[in-house]
Amino acid sequence: MEQKFQELKKRFSEVSAINSAAAVLHWDQQVYMPPGGAEARAAASAALEELSHVKFTSDANGALIAGLYDWAQGLGEDSFEASYLRAARRDYDIAKKLPADFVGEFSKTTSLAMEAWAKARAASDFSAFAPHLQKIVDLNLRKAQILGYKDSPYDALLDLYEPGATKAAVGPVLRKLAEGLKPLISEINGRKAKISNGILKGDFDEERQLALVNELTAALGYDFKRGRQDRSVHPFTTGFSINDVRITTRTQRDYLPAAVYGSIHECGHALYSQGSPQEFEFTPLADGASLGVHESQSRFWENIVGRSRPFCRWLLPLLMKHFPGKFDGVTADQLYAAVNRSEPSFIRVEADEVNYNLHILLRYEIETAMLEGALKVEDAPAFWNAKMQDYFGITPAKASDGILQDVHWSLGMIGYFPTYTLGNLISAQIARKLDADLPGWADLPAHGEFAPILSWLRKHIHSQGRKYLPGRLLQRAVGEELRVEPFLDYIKDKYSKLYGF
Amino acid sequence: MEQKFQELKKRFSEVSAINSAAAVLHWDQQVYMPPGGAEARAAASAALEELSHVKFTSDANGALIAGLYDWAQGLGEDSFEASYLRAARRDYDIAKKLPADFVGEFSKTTSLAMEAWAKARAASDFSAFAPHLQKIVDLNLRKAQILGYKDSPYDALLDLYEPGATKAAVGPVLRKLAEGLKPLISEINGRKAKISNGILKGDFDEERQLALVNELTAALGYDFKRGRQDRSVHPFTTGFSINDVRITTRTQRDYLPAAVYGSIHECGHALYSQGSPQEFEFTPLADGASLGVHESQSRFWENIVGRSRPFCRWLLPLLMKHFPGKFDGVTADQLYAAVNRSEPSFIRVEADEVNYNLHILLRYEIETAMLEGALKVEDAPAFWNAKMQDYFGITPAKASDGILQDVHWSLGMIGYFPTYTLGNLISAQIARKLDADLPGWADLPAHGEFAPILSWLRKHIHSQGRKYLPGRLLQRAVGEELRVEPFLDYIKDKYSKLYGF
Repeated sequence: MEQKFQELKKRFSEVSAINSAAAVLHWDQQVYMPPGGAEARAAASAALEELSHVKFTSDANGALIAGLYDWAQGLGEDSFEASYLRAARRDYDIAKKLPADFVGEFSKTTSLAMEAWAKARAASDFSAFAPHLQKIVDLNLRKAQILGYKDSPYDALLDLYEPGATKAAVGPVLRKLAEGLKPLISEINGRKAKISNGILKGDFDEERQLALVNELTAALGYDFKRGRQDRSVHPFTTGFSINDVRITTRTQRDYLPAAVYGSIHECGHALYSQGSPQEFEFTPLADGASLGVHESQSRFWENIVGRSRPFCRWLLPLLMKHFPGKFDGVTADQLYAAVNRSEPSFIRVEADEVNYNLHILLRYEIETAMLEGALKVEDAPAFWNAKMQDYFGITPAKASDGILQDVHWSLGMIGYFPTYTLGNLISAQIARKLDADLPGWADLPAHGEFAPILSWLRKHIHSQGRKYLPGRLLQRAVGEELRVEPFLDYIKDKYSKLYGF
Repeated sequence: MEQKFQELKKRFSEVSAINSAAAVLHWDQQVYMPPGGAEARAAASAALEELSHVKFTSDANGALIAGLYDWAQGLGEDSFEASYLRAARRDYDIAKKLPADFVGEFSKTTSLAMEAWAKARAASDFSAFAPHLQKIVDLNLRKAQILGYKDSPYDALLDLYEPGATKAAVGPVLRKLAEGLKPLISEINGRKAKISNGILKGDFDEERQLALVNELTAALGYDFKRGRQDRSVHPFTTGFSINDVRITTRTQRDYLPAAVYGSIHECGHALYSQGSPQEFEFTPLADGASLGVHESQSRFWENIVGRSRPFCRWLLPLLMKHFPGKFDGVTADQLYAAVNRSEPSFIRVEADEVNYNLHILLRYEIETAMLEGALKVEDAPAFWNAKMQDYFGITPAKASDGILQDVHWSLGMIGYFPTYTLGNLISAQIARKLDADLPGWADLPAHGEFAPILSWLRKHIHSQGRKYLPGRLLQRAVGEELRVEPFLDYIKDKYSKLYGF
């Protein structure tokens, strides 16, 4: 058995090597590729994807997994082998279920949809994107049927991004959260005294911004010997290996937080990925438990640490160092207020901590309604705008500020959005557990002390890689299941003080 | 037949896609990869190499090539199909002849040799590298035996880099060239008045150097929409597609020519690669005829254009623009003299136009002697030093300035060096043909007019891709075979004027 397991590992490691190569190609495409390279790159990426898929779904792999599964579980639920086989079987089954012609059709559809979406957004013309969205909804429905589900087709899709999650579990969580947030939003919007974020606007040299966020992420614990940071249009994190995890940031010349908080966010993802044990390299156990747990790491660093008062005390001198003169006379409290300014806005990625999760609920509601046939694609913009009015009291004047703002659907991803809110909730649960395990931890950032916090995350989350399903990992790490209250308590406490009510 | 040809093209294009991906991985490794990524990158590269090899050498490909060859030749020697099949058959036969275990052993040996060479060079200790060099000589001898040859095993190796070249043809050329150069070298070294290159030394901001060489290469015609320029330890050119050809340069803070002439050199290679017709994309006909012809392009731009008096007139204001104040009072003639300063030196890559080819002859003599058993590896350093004394009148004090300076042998490449000299010779033949075809061409660079020159190269060389063997391409482009005289005439004329004799 041990020998067969080594054979499976060898085979999977070859697939991982191809996937690693494919990730390099994708990184280069987003970061450095000249426009002329697009066509050849698409061909090269497609070739690697196909090779990886063929190698991965071989019958020999299926036989090895089937033959090893019980043996591995017998070594103990938490053993490397048992976790390996659980992850391997899950991935193999999903890949094997989806027929090649379906995958081909899906890929062709999304490739056309991406293009159509970019144009439709530029022209703010939903009708140009609608037929593509319809196809994507239909294909996702078929995907759900192929993968199988018990209650809702949405379950099968959710499960792809957040293993084990269901509509029945996630829906109520999102709604309960929204109910808790709405009074807070009213309270903030009712205040006459608005917070200004003017100190974050100005003319910030973009090379210096990069130097700033390089110093910043290194201080958080990001290992530049095993990664690097570049600029791209949309920030992202990618890994070619546990020891080569790269992040990108977006510098915006007239607004500093884009780079600063974008970098901290991606750094949070990267710290998770860099924290996988070396023996997980090129195995299905490398990297994180789910998108939700991954997002808990990025949000934890971005918001709970990065938008805290102690952190701002440490950040201010760093800003002053990189931008001499620009922050003269600014106090840490002013910086803290500015980076936490809350107001209703149209764009999800620009939303503050209070409003953000309602943007997600809106998308969840549209996705489930479209998928279950309760909402026609053509009616989606009206639905969107009505919800915007309901949640935030504002209505976007154009579709590019509304239903066309996100890339996800054009990429074929339905069921992805909820993981953002799951991440926010989990980040608050982690913070509460840290209160117990590491008293005073929240003040450490004031002195640039991030190592004890990272150590806790490494021990309880990062070092587990993908050994456990998110629910089980959460139980082990914070001793409870997914809950709304820690986040609600955190956000109410923070904002009632910020806005004085 | 047409249908079978399309099938072969499709199969080869898939292999090209994998090779394109492998090239991206290599580029990233040299340019941006953090040190931690090395191990995973080696695995990913090896996986792609193996996949490419297996796909390329399939029996189905062999059958298609055999079935199509005569049909294609029947379409006319110069037809796309005929050239395609000639190139395909050549590549296939070579790849097919080399057994997998030999390739594996070769790759393992060179990987260890690379490491050993780097350490040996740092310690200037030839004995630490000698056993590796011995193995590499032995493996190259076996390679030659596997590939087959008529007169000398060196022929089989030469042919890998310069198709059709033989020791019997190349050896006399190198020696005849040396005989012509030796009196010139004596003459220059005998001059009391030395040329100073002090104006090229100083403190040059490396970001500004990059900006300078970006402007410079764009002016030469390098298409940044289909390429980009980055920095690396050793400058190189690579292509992932005809439309994504990248160059790197090496900035040296205290010496400007490293970046300027390194960039022009790589740009010459890149112009060749970018100049392949679009229909050659992902076919064996993309890119150049041989390493020698490729080098003729890089050397033509670097030396014949880039180190000409008219070019220096254009370059000087560009230097002044990027380095305000540094070139005040410098004249174009002073710049011209400085970039052409000649003196015997130990390091090939730093050698001037006059001395360079003797460095190559020396390596050719060592390589052939080792391969044919006339020189023991252990005696190679003494041989090297004796030749240095003979050709240049100097003896390196340490092996790192002598026999350990080049990376080629550690990479397993024996038979590669002569292509550098072939490139120099061809570049002069091209210049002479330009005299006839485009009178006054040599003065165009004074006004930054490079397009007419590039057009000529595009028409007569670049657009041919790899359709013809180097000898035939040369006949078609300059109307004669490889000759020494044009280079000797060029160099004697240039240096007799520079040094006044």
